[in-house]
This record gives sequence, structure tokens and C-alpha cells, in this order.
Amino acid sequence: MADEHSHLQEHTLARAEVFRGAFLKVVRDLVRLPDGKTAPREMVLHPGAVVVIALLDDGRVVLERQWRHPVGRVMIELPAGKLDADEDRLACAKRELLEETGYSAREWAHAGVMHPCIGYSDEFLDIWFARGLTLGERRLDEGEFLDVFAATPQQLMDWVRDGSLTDGKTLSCLVWLDNVLNGRWVLDWRAQSPA
Amino acid sequence: MADEHSHLQEHTLARAEVFRGAFLKVVRDLVRLPDGKTAPREMVLHPGAVVVIALLDDGRVVLERQWRHPVGRVMIELPAGKLDADEDRLACAKRELLEETGYSAREWAHAGVMHPCIGYSDEFLDIWFARGLTLGERRLDEGEFLDVFAATPQQLMDWVRDGSLTDGKTLSCLVWLDNVLNGRWVLDWRAQSPA
Repeated sequence: MADEHSHLQEHTLARAEVFRGAFLKVVRDLVRLPDGKTAPREMVLHPGAVVVIALLDDGRVVLERQWRHPVGRVMIELPAGKLDADEDRLACAKRELLEETGYSAREWAHAGVMHPCIGYSDEFLDIWFARGLTLGERRLDEGEFLDVFAATPQQLMDWVRDGSLTDGKTLSCLVWLDNVLNGRWVLDWRAQSPA
Repeated sequence: MADEHSHLQEHTLARAEVFRGAFLKVVRDLVRLPDGKTAPREMVLHPGAVVVIALLDDGRVVLERQWRHPVGRVMIELPAGKLDADEDRLACAKRELLEETGYSAREWAHAGVMHPCIGYSDEFLDIWFARGLTLGERRLDEGEFLDVFAATPQQLMDWVRDGSLTDGKTLSCLVWLDNVLNGRWVLDWRAQSPA
């Protein structure tokens, strides 16, 4: 793709950190455009994250309800969380599922990657499926408040249609879930030791 | 939902702008958590945007290839763009489709809304369908470089599966596209004057 689309490519000339908060880091890059001119590019630097499609034995999907301050409402979402420094992505998926929902899984399968916000963030989300679930104790972070529940794939689709489910990472995972459940896409399930 | 889930809700106590760049604006809010403690919340302020699922008469979907600096690669995406100040969302959808791809549409239908980045941005994307397309001249912004092409819905799904399509807004729209094309969800098409 790099050669075929080189007429679109930008080249980074310089980078400066312009904001470092408790949570967000913003840089301003200077890039050379395809026509040789230069332009500034501001973006959030993010460590990357995982999102988990955890399937209960009855076919329902494990979900969360969580207040999201940036959008000012309670959102229906799949379990997800940021990678710790140098953390393996599957290890992160196991950790986040356990911490947020209390579930451990006997089998995991990697699906793909999605980029939630390509205009101004380098964040990627690694998408994982989990099954063979066992419920234990969740361990929420300090200051973290969320409800865990479950719903059928059909219910999730109905919530998209009626506007109750608008979270982009969860919507993106519904493409994977639908194709997997319909047998069009086959996952490479691997047995795993508990988190 | 507000009452039912009030045990999750955070309340904003104060806001300070902590970064204002040429493109990004970041605020730090102080919120009161459900347990009465306080916590900082940093987030990007965004004007909101639209994304367009434009259907050609042969069933293909209008797409773009564009270099996205934050992820350092050429991305396959649906046409999309930010709302201008006080701009009507449909007017924005018409404008962005025309400017970026050259297409005007005789009929438009509103689908829904998605939130790409609920952890640290208030951005919403309004999802629109367009059909009855006529190709004219596109008018890219200064410094904007992108290729316009078209693909079948099946090709789009194949690209998700093989990792070629990872853009969250486009993935989210595939949920809508798939359900609409399969007749499960019916849109409210409206004839429109050209952009």
C-alpha cells in the first residue's frame, strides 16, 4: 500500500509536546504534504487499548454501563481498557475483563484492530473474543463506577437502531460479532490459563 | 436512563481550558464522583461531525483513501467532515460529500449517531445515507489530499476481516449498511435539493 499510495503520504519533519496532563498527552507535529508544502498536525498520544467480546454460554454478550463524562451520559459498552507499559495485548484483555466484570475465560481468539479516532489520536483498539466464562470477583480501579450486565446480539442490534448504543468501539465489534455468529468468519480459538 | 442509572453519574464542578492549538482544544473538568469524591477529567472539545454512506446505482459505496498522520498510514474511509459553526447536519453531509468526492445526491436518509472516542472526546458523528448520486467537481480544502473510489459492501467486509479497513467510523457505519441492505432496518429517505 505504501508505494501504491505514496502520492497521499505525509512525512514528519518535527514533533513538539504541547500539552501533558494527568491523562492526556498532545503533540504538534510538522509534516511535509504530498505537494511539498508543510502543515501542523496536532494529535493525542495514546498507549493503545483492548476491547473484549465475551460470550456467555447462553449466547449473551457481557456488557457495561458506565458514565462517560466527555459525552455526559451513561453508555452501553463492551469491556475495554488501556494497555499498561509493555503489556501484552492478550494479557491486557484478560486483566481488563477480570477487573471490570469479574469474568475469566477458558478460550480467547484475536479478531482484529480498530482505530477509533484517526483524525486526532494514534489510539488503536485490539479486538478479542472470549468464551468459556467463569464469574469471580471484579476489582474496579479507585474512582471507577460501572454496572455489568448481559444482552443478546439481537438486543445489541436493536439498541443501535433505536440510538441507545452509540459507542464506536462497541459498534465496530458488532461487525465482528455478527460475521462470527453467522459462521462467515471463523476465529482461531486458543485455550488459555486464567488471568 | 438518567434516573435508573443515577448511581453512575458524575457531576461537573468546574472547567478550565488547558490547551488551545490550531486544531485541538483540551479542557480539564473537575467532577464529583458517585461516591462524593472528586476527580479530574481531561477531554478534547470537538464541534461534531458527519459521515456519509453514499450508494451508487450499481450498489457500490463511495469511499476515500487518505493519509492519516496520527496512525501513520493510508486509511480506507467513508466521506466525513466536521460541522462548521451553527451548520445544519444534513447541510454539512451534503457539503462534505460534494467537496471531498464531487458527488451530489437526490435522496438522503438519517441513520443515527455514533461517538468515536468516549474516553477523551465529546465528538459525535451523525450518520447519513445518500443515493441517486451525480458526479460533479470536487473541491478539496487547501492541503487536503485524498483519492475517491468505490467498493461493494462485500469487499468492505472482506477488508475488515483481513485488517485493511480499521477506521472506527467506517466500521460503525457497516452495521447500519448491512442491516439496511438486508432489509432489517428501513430508512426514511427524503428527496433533497442539490447541495
